[in-house]
Amino acid sequence: MRIAVLGTGMVGRAIGTKLIELGHEVRMGSRSADHPGGLEWAAESGANASLGTFADAADFGEVVVNATGGAASLAALRAAGAPALAGKILIDIANPLDFSGESVTLSVVNTDSLGEQIQREFPEARVVKTLNTLNASVMVDPSRVPGDHTLFVCGNDDKAKRTVTDLLVSFGWPSSGIIDLGDISGARSTEMLLPIWLRLLSTFGHSDFNFHIQRAR
Amino acid sequence: MRIAVLGTGMVGRAIGTKLIELGHEVRMGSRSADHPGGLEWAAESGANASLGTFADAADFGEVVVNATGGAASLAALRAAGAPALAGKILIDIANPLDFSGESVTLSVVNTDSLGEQIQREFPEARVVKTLNTLNASVMVDPSRVPGDHTLFVCGNDDKAKRTVTDLLVSFGWPSSGIIDLGDISGARSTEMLLPIWLRLLSTFGHSDFNFHIQRAR
Repeated sequence: MRIAVLGTGMVGRAIGTKLIELGHEVRMGSRSADHPGGLEWAAESGANASLGTFADAADFGEVVVNATGGAASLAALRAAGAPALAGKILIDIANPLDFSGESVTLSVVNTDSLGEQIQREFPEARVVKTLNTLNASVMVDPSRVPGDHTLFVCGNDDKAKRTVTDLLVSFGWPSSGIIDLGDISGARSTEMLLPIWLRLLSTFGHSDFNFHIQRAR
Repeated sequence: MRIAVLGTGMVGRAIGTKLIELGHEVRMGSRSADHPGGLEWAAESGANASLGTFADAADFGEVVVNATGGAASLAALRAAGAPALAGKILIDIANPLDFSGESVTLSVVNTDSLGEQIQREFPEARVVKTLNTLNASVMVDPSRVPGDHTLFVCGNDDKAKRTVTDLLVSFGWPSSGIIDLGDISGARSTEMLLPIWLRLLSTFGHSDFNFHIQRAR
């Protein structure tokens, strides 16, 4: 599959590399087509990897992954352009973290979410929110954390969620560990996991952990 | 131990009954000393159980449990009175849920929490936030959910947290499943678990589940 990965940070590179390993063609998108980190990633990742602007990448991809920082996501998607996103699955991994204050907070929370903002602004994209509740290295290698643990997906389009779930299974996630939280408003609840994720990061001193939902039935 | 349980709802009754079973003396506190549900609970629970006003109960207890609804908690604690809470461990189980809108939201969130509001208003109480991230029946019987699962505690007073942890262990929680999130500002992160807890309740159709933190080390 041809996949666009918007964002050249840790999340974008981890996802891009995993997709290349799985045989996909990946174009990473950045604000500029000569982003040093993105060029380095493309050079190291072989013939199926390339770098372009957000618009280049979104045009290229049959599926688009938003791996930009939450504060930059809407601008990146606007640069990609609504026509390039229309009808496509848009996997949203971003969290609306605000680092400007004394403690990290969410810039949109409680009555709305970044996932919903994106779906509202790009109504023809099929937004699936997932992978935003864990570290990049665990996203693409769930075995870094022992035992069963959970991924959440949500979005308005059931077929899109099934395709994304298949992709996550190809990453190594057991389908039994993937919980469908329903429509895109579920993004509020998963983005609101970030404060405790950050608190646990600070408590443990590492990010090799994940949420698991234990249930009786 | 003499323990005050403020609140006559499901959480208060579950905690009160468990404490009675464990041999404690429990005075349940309510707005009025003749609350029908509270009187019924006291009548069914034997000689160590009684009902009083919030102030009666707080005066009685060496430890005070806030099991009122989040919207009523500050008023209940004001009725109990700062002098009756001074120096005591105040176990805060409440969540600031707002049921007035289309979906349930948090009335305080992101940059503050109910746990912090309570600690600020009653600076001489030793507030420990815990048990607010799961159903009442699981709080007092963790074996309802199979496997390992997690309780979070936070608060400014380490000795108070140790005493509360001992009490939780007496409820049946393994100490290895209790994670200390540090000071009372951790209450933000646990109260913000409520949106996904409510979403999972609706997804599963039952409340016999709990969060577990899987970790590599």
